[in-house]
Amino acid sequence: MKTSQRIVVIGGVACGPKAAARARRRDPSASITIIDEGSLVSYATCGLPYYVSGAVAKRSALLVRSVADFKNVASIDVLLQTRAEAIDRSAHRVHLVSAATGQTSTLEYDKLVIATGSGPVLPNIEGRQLGGIFSVKDVANADAILAWVTTAGVKKAVVVGAGLVGIEMAEVLMTRGLEVTVVEALGRLLPGALDEEISAILARQLGRKGLTLRLNERVLEFEGDEGRVRRVVTAGGTLDADIVIVAIGVRPNVALARAAGLSLGATGGIAVNEMLQTSDPDIYAGGDCVENTHLVSGAKVLAPMGSTANKHGRVIGTNVTGGRETFPGVLGTTVVKALDYHIGRTGLGEEAARAAGFDVVTALVPGSDRVTYYPGAHDILLKVIADARTGRLLGGQGMGRGDLVKRIDVLAAAITFGGTVDALANVDLGYAPPYNTPLDPLHSAANVVRNKMAGMAEGVTPAQVKAKLDAGEDFVLLDVRSQKEWGTWRLETPQVCLIPQDQLQQRLGELPKDKPIVTTCRAGARAYQAALALKGAGFRRVQFAEGSLIAWPYDCFGGERESI
Amino acid sequence: MKTSQRIVVIGGVACGPKAAARARRRDPSASITIIDEGSLVSYATCGLPYYVSGAVAKRSALLVRSVADFKNVASIDVLLQTRAEAIDRSAHRVHLVSAATGQTSTLEYDKLVIATGSGPVLPNIEGRQLGGIFSVKDVANADAILAWVTTAGVKKAVVVGAGLVGIEMAEVLMTRGLEVTVVEALGRLLPGALDEEISAILARQLGRKGLTLRLNERVLEFEGDEGRVRRVVTAGGTLDADIVIVAIGVRPNVALARAAGLSLGATGGIAVNEMLQTSDPDIYAGGDCVENTHLVSGAKVLAPMGSTANKHGRVIGTNVTGGRETFPGVLGTTVVKALDYHIGRTGLGEEAARAAGFDVVTALVPGSDRVTYYPGAHDILLKVIADARTGRLLGGQGMGRGDLVKRIDVLAAAITFGGTVDALANVDLGYAPPYNTPLDPLHSAANVVRNKMAGMAEGVTPAQVKAKLDAGEDFVLLDVRSQKEWGTWRLETPQVCLIPQDQLQQRLGELPKDKPIVTTCRAGARAYQAALALKGAGFRRVQFAEGSLIAWPYDCFGGERESI
Repeated sequence: MKTSQRIVVIGGVACGPKAAARARRRDPSASITIIDEGSLVSYATCGLPYYVSGAVAKRSALLVRSVADFKNVASIDVLLQTRAEAIDRSAHRVHLVSAATGQTSTLEYDKLVIATGSGPVLPNIEGRQLGGIFSVKDVANADAILAWVTTAGVKKAVVVGAGLVGIEMAEVLMTRGLEVTVVEALGRLLPGALDEEISAILARQLGRKGLTLRLNERVLEFEGDEGRVRRVVTAGGTLDADIVIVAIGVRPNVALARAAGLSLGATGGIAVNEMLQTSDPDIYAGGDCVENTHLVSGAKVLAPMGSTANKHGRVIGTNVTGGRETFPGVLGTTVVKALDYHIGRTGLGEEAARAAGFDVVTALVPGSDRVTYYPGAHDILLKVIADARTGRLLGGQGMGRGDLVKRIDVLAAAITFGGTVDALANVDLGYAPPYNTPLDPLHSAANVVRNKMAGMAEGVTPAQVKAKLDAGEDFVLLDVRSQKEWGTWRLETPQVCLIPQDQLQQRLGELPKDKPIVTTCRAGARAYQAALALKGAGFRRVQFAEGSLIAWPYDCFGGERESI
Repeated sequence: MKTSQRIVVIGGVACGPKAAARARRRDPSASITIIDEGSLVSYATCGLPYYVSGAVAKRSALLVRSVADFKNVASIDVLLQTRAEAIDRSAHRVHLVSAATGQTSTLEYDKLVIATGSGPVLPNIEGRQLGGIFSVKDVANADAILAWVTTAGVKKAVVVGAGLVGIEMAEVLMTRGLEVTVVEALGRLLPGALDEEISAILARQLGRKGLTLRLNERVLEFEGDEGRVRRVVTAGGTLDADIVIVAIGVRPNVALARAAGLSLGATGGIAVNEMLQTSDPDIYAGGDCVENTHLVSGAKVLAPMGSTANKHGRVIGTNVTGGRETFPGVLGTTVVKALDYHIGRTGLGEEAARAAGFDVVTALVPGSDRVTYYPGAHDILLKVIADARTGRLLGGQGMGRGDLVKRIDVLAAAITFGGTVDALANVDLGYAPPYNTPLDPLHSAANVVRNKMAGMAEGVTPAQVKAKLDAGEDFVLLDVRSQKEWGTWRLETPQVCLIPQDQLQQRLGELPKDKPIVTTCRAGARAYQAALALKGAGFRRVQFAEGSLIAWPYDCFGGERESI
């Protein structure tokens, strides 16, 4: 008689429990054990910010499954407060230590799963041990933040790091009524996720909602008294702080794997093949601690996401029970909500695409998330990045108060399956007034890329227009909106002039044939049409401002500006 | 010198104006004329129901562009109240009649675009000329409905036809405070769009919200007095009616094309090639009046959608100006909002897929549109249809109060690009608590299909369970929810028994080994796990109820039922 397979899983959140549960479903007789050094299993790490904000009222809502559940429902043993000290690969044995008693023990495995996750990177600077300085890590940690935030007198917060968790925590603290400053060492909000055009307008809009953002500022020191933080010293000055959240990134937990001699990748994550098998064929690894293949660039990347960890879990659960399933890779898809704004990206950004060797064409397209006559319509700003030779979709990103996330998910699917802008332009997306426009903003973005590839459209980005203005270049910035729109707000620069679109044919004589012209309007469509009309009338050096005024993230305009 | 190209477009809504505008952008010197027999150009047909409901407060919001706009901005001539009587193909000439004066004229073309759209099918029955009987067609018609609806004493409405427009109008009239009955000759709500499982639960839920639905009932006659409708006589009885909306479908307007000798397809639409060229190479056609290729079945289908019409317009605008662009086809994607419910479908339904010769595997999966601990989470019910041999995605549909439409759009993209369930299961969709669950309902649905293909999961649909119960079959319907859930509501049949999931291992002895067992729970996941546990324990004839109780559309349960 065949003895039952012994499966040991190190790590009790997301990937680990998922691998264990899937293994149980495929093999009713296997002996399955999950080990975790914490005191909880299978909780929703991604929900921690919303627990701190109060949106998640009950702590128990974060707990997906209990130890008793695992035992009673799936016959899976969970050993909490138990640390895996070492892996003896030749003996197929894990050395354990109980956090409570210090007792050691060993556990034998036929297949081992490493799902040790990642941990927050902590800055090695003065004052980092002061009370009131937190990273976002686990439930106990969230409890501590919540207690601190709700203490009387806690009014000013500094969030170090403008990445995903930093932005989520900034929102959380703002909704808790704190005055929040985000300090970021790099030059933009969500620097790992967004290109400049999207990031800059997001920064502007969050600023208008009350968030203070300090970019290009490294944190030098935390100052405090009585053991608690009072100030954050940056390269740019000193900020008062009653609480500090450090969110400068996470690092894969690979000490155990490294000590066991398993191969690590250049990213620092555990190296695995498509089956999520490590360099030891009896050891699998998944979740935040491994590196993934980027489906567009082919490069190895870290992708610490609960969604990816769960997918890994299923693949591993299949493979440790004799199946054969593969995990193809990731697109680095990221979505995040910040106050009223929805933000997202998938695939490669423009800079990353260029760095990966692609010849890139992009479109920056504002659009309404549904027909403007339907109640609740909001704008979104979409950027699509494609290969200039083939039109293959490489990435997309955007922000807005409208439904941006749907478009990111559609792009993720299209990119996964090798879609091109030609195909995207004709995808039969569902259309009804409550949900989108007859041509979805994605269709429009695909068409702008196609127009650019065909040489019909020549666009300039807000940053490029800004550079021309800042340099005092001699060109005409031709605004073709109506007199009424012009009256509401406009760019105030010497280069600007207004000729409403419906007067353009008659007033061509007012425009100089010898100067470059950049056309602009509210959102780019009229600017594009005007540029074509000017070219048709013999003007040679005409470009249109992509995204036009609604995507303009800079100052230097008059009147009450409209926002995306 | 080359004379400018003469482009004539017949039809002033959606496809026609889009074709004209695109042609202008590509060819500044072409002479472009749009002809329409109505008195408005370029209005939002799809917005008409929401104009009647009052959601669109201003009539002008429906008007996309005016005649003056076309002239001043794009140098496009628009001739309204002008009917194209005949096309003289050999002379490249259209014969026109002015609706106002009866005067005739002719217009020569180099390229002609037929975008004559579609018109509502009207039942050829007694009383159809009575006042108060409307179809939804154009702005004038919507004005008339609005006037009638807001007349004192108009309280009861009958909508004939439970298709897309029928459901939209039923919602509109309910929000206007009318008592609404929908009469449908076929056996289900949205019969052309939804499979039985989705349609039945939608019907149930709309019924709970106050909509009366009479299926399998043909309308025989309209009765009235003083020239206005008072009653609708159906095969099942007589219904009082102060207003009747007839929405039994639309038919392509092809009289002009047919008279000109252009080829029509078997669907009744104008036959066109991928370039949307008719059988006459100088005549293009697009929008509701042509037939399309279905991208999954390859069959020719009618797809009267504003979204498709706009895409057609761009393709035609390119091709009539010397370009070469193709329109690949449609997926029949449909989305519609009905009260709190979002409904959608794309690709082939299960029946259509079988009819097209596919060996089909499906999954019926309820899920939460975002993590349940995040405020505002709502359920959706998803059905995915795939090819049983290859796992290729063939279609998907669903309903729910949660964000269903996003999932339909992702499926549309995946199907367009030839995606399989294996690939769908690992698509890197954006994950954050406000937007979805770590494994999106789409991932879960793909995994259920994979489990069924692998022989791990054996599902039965609600209809199949119902049939077993109705036939009094001897089997065990094993509910594995908690005692508390059971206390709230349950199926009340002799076959039902409760063994909560966490007691199942200990209480296996209570279950008969010789009878078939169907496991059920709230939404299917626990039922699936329980079925595997039973199989692992030696039970042979075990299936799980797909969608379980939350997807159960029938009566026969006790307590206050939970709804999707």
